Amino acid sequence: MSTIDKNLSSFLDIATDSDFSIHNLPYGIFSDTADGKRRAGVAIGKHVLDLSVLEAEGLLSLDGGPYFDQNTLNAFIDSGRDNWTKARQTIQTLLSSDCDTLRDNEDLQQIALFQQSDVTMHLPVQVPGFTDFYSSKEHATNVGTMFRDPSNALLPNWTEMPVGYNGRASTVIVSGTDVIRPSGQLKPNADDRPIFSPCKRLDFELETAFVVGKGNNIGQPIAVDNAIDHIFGMVLLNDWSARDIQKWEYVPLGPFNAKTFASEVSPWIVTMEALAPFKMPCPTQEPKPLAYLNEKNSNNSYDIHLSVELLPENAEEATVVCETNFKYMYWSMAQQLTHHTITGCKVEVGDMMGSGTISGPMPDSYGSMLEIAWNATKPVTLQGGETRSFIEDGDTVIMKGYSEKDGIRVGFGEVRGKVLPALTFDFDK
Amino acid sequence: MSTIDKNLSSFLDIATDSDFSIHNLPYGIFSDTADGKRRAGVAIGKHVLDLSVLEAEGLLSLDGGPYFDQNTLNAFIDSGRDNWTKARQTIQTLLSSDCDTLRDNEDLQQIALFQQSDVTMHLPVQVPGFTDFYSSKEHATNVGTMFRDPSNALLPNWTEMPVGYNGRASTVIVSGTDVIRPSGQLKPNADDRPIFSPCKRLDFELETAFVVGKGNNIGQPIAVDNAIDHIFGMVLLNDWSARDIQKWEYVPLGPFNAKTFASEVSPWIVTMEALAPFKMPCPTQEPKPLAYLNEKNSNNSYDIHLSVELLPENAEEATVVCETNFKYMYWSMAQQLTHHTITGCKVEVGDMMGSGTISGPMPDSYGSMLEIAWNATKPVTLQGGETRSFIEDGDTVIMKGYSEKDGIRVGFGEVRGKVLPALTFDFDK
Repeated sequence: MSTIDKNLSSFLDIATDSDFSIHNLPYGIFSDTADGKRRAGVAIGKHVLDLSVLEAEGLLSLDGGPYFDQNTLNAFIDSGRDNWTKARQTIQTLLSSDCDTLRDNEDLQQIALFQQSDVTMHLPVQVPGFTDFYSSKEHATNVGTMFRDPSNALLPNWTEMPVGYNGRASTVIVSGTDVIRPSGQLKPNADDRPIFSPCKRLDFELETAFVVGKGNNIGQPIAVDNAIDHIFGMVLLNDWSARDIQKWEYVPLGPFNAKTFASEVSPWIVTMEALAPFKMPCPTQEPKPLAYLNEKNSNNSYDIHLSVELLPENAEEATVVCETNFKYMYWSMAQQLTHHTITGCKVEVGDMMGSGTISGPMPDSYGSMLEIAWNATKPVTLQGGETRSFIEDGDTVIMKGYSEKDGIRVGFGEVRGKVLPALTFDFDK
Repeated sequence: MSTIDKNLSSFLDIATDSDFSIHNLPYGIFSDTADGKRRAGVAIGKHVLDLSVLEAEGLLSLDGGPYFDQNTLNAFIDSGRDNWTKARQTIQTLLSSDCDTLRDNEDLQQIALFQQSDVTMHLPVQVPGFTDFYSSKEHATNVGTMFRDPSNALLPNWTEMPVGYNGRASTVIVSGTDVIRPSGQLKPNADDRPIFSPCKRLDFELETAFVVGKGNNIGQPIAVDNAIDHIFGMVLLNDWSARDIQKWEYVPLGPFNAKTFASEVSPWIVTMEALAPFKMPCPTQEPKPLAYLNEKNSNNSYDIHLSVELLPENAEEATVVCETNFKYMYWSMAQQLTHHTITGCKVEVGDMMGSGTISGPMPDSYGSMLEIAWNATKPVTLQGGETRSFIEDGDTVIMKGYSEKDGIRVGFGEVRGKVLPALTFDFDK
């Protein structure tokens, strides 16, 4: 199941360093300039394969379908694992060198294949719920060291549960959407009242998010050994954060305004099936988790290389400011999902659950500017000489991710967002 | 606009203490046993008036309709204030003594009027987002006194902003739904590891919630003086809480498992138009809020009497354990909504925003068992002699609310929920 068929190749010309090999086949929602109509596609090399065309042509018939001539993937995902498997196998066959159906039919290629550069990508799912975890031990330790007590950086509940909080589904946006610098309450001086101001410490958080593929009933937790069956796939997530707003607001009920202006995701959902060959164990969990979080399968994480690039407005090239890996995550996605539902919370198809900032052990693997520039004490010098402690207006943040093994690559593409200046407010009071 | 037409009366026989006078006309979604089909209705006395029938008969024609032969009220609400006004006027006229259209048409009454006792109520809206505020100064002070520092019970940000957190829309349930006692992580002994256990400190929180009637675009905050125009109406909310789970999990990212098992709402949305005659000022806000939160209109709260009753499994009668009033809320709903969007958060039609526990100044006006029994140090004696510090299996919690003035009553009905025993878990590890 998790082995790679290295003999499999596509009739399309796909660069060896393409994220979108025939082993990947991530799902997204796209439109082209012809009519702007949204429908589902799969990324392959530099192309998008239009699944609604395959369905219309009778080449992709799924139980209960059609599913792909729709604005979102929710109905397809909700149709269940048998359809996920059948769709993947059918699409992989149609794209393979050995199958002449699409390979030798230029008319069909004409209507079913688009250049990625010619299409617009949209949110792949309607997101009913958005949750963000906090599952990188290195990140939690870094934050605790900076803002609380270096000798007790990790709070006592951190090693007992995948700590998380509810985010705001309405502000999940797709890669390429500009982000307006938020304004809100800051408290620059401890002795003074807060002020209303544009955020001065705007940050990214390098995360992944998983997409729920199967829900549960309210009151019925998902058992940890079944949890992975409830996950459809993963995306990259830039969980934009206003550090100064967060610092003032977050005690005692957690982050609110500081997070709910933009949670930006990559447009292609890479399936768990495509990622299966890159499984590896989570770090050792000590103490051993309580029984409800204790997985029989210890091969519960994934080797996914991740990076962040920063591109100032007029810079010629982007600077890589972080290189890390999903494998550093302490808590697995199965543990996160089980913990989320343990008191009975209902999760739904299309829910997105963020990993939390993914920091590795070394400073160049930290997943936020807060950590990279260590609370503005170690500004980063970019290509061209500019320095950064936080994100400035005009900056574009680009996150990338891929798995690679035996020359086979399965990648996410990127999530890219540019920061626009804050709005001007005129309070006539 | 906010005066009451005392000459207005219905041809239906409506008790003077009915919550559902002709001045109220709250909207809900109901089904009857005939076919179980969900559609919209208005509560009037002991009846439900079927709005889908009025639409079908051509008696209620709204721009862009029909709206009421649907599972939720979202489309009607989204259609805008002109339709809200027209619907209210039309329904009020049809139910009035002076109008013969429904009054003298028994056949129409037969198909359009149902006894409330014969129908099943459902969630009135599909809820895209659920937020809970924390806007009662008395409640925040009580909790701070018990768990932090009595001399600094209110945290410094509390008087500067309506503190809130994102809840979980998927676990908003309608009155009458049983609530399974949640199980999760508790830490009974500070020196030991946590345990997995049924919650031992299950509590209610007496709240109201407003329903968003008009959204905003992401990145575009709602100005505080316009905010009330974005609110469609209000419901009662029992924000069920697992105090022991909350205590262990909530630092630093806020409540999660402790809240996301059940947020139970009353089925009838009382419109802001019906509540307008009961407007009154919020308590004085000192310090004066920052400009973005400073309302020109100080008549920004409502006089709504609220109560909580507790009914043990085999008790003969319920005991009133709390009587309080919405007017005690420090932050207005307009301020809550503006603060929610100030960094750019998008809100959507159907979003529900909880007030936070509504406690008054006296112990018998506290809105949670945590406060009423003062952290289990002052158990409450119920009718029949049983005592309670928290909610036990088999207990039913009933919350009621109404406004009254000059003999005219506009009420919410009730939100009622019964607690079932925890599930049995068998972890085979």
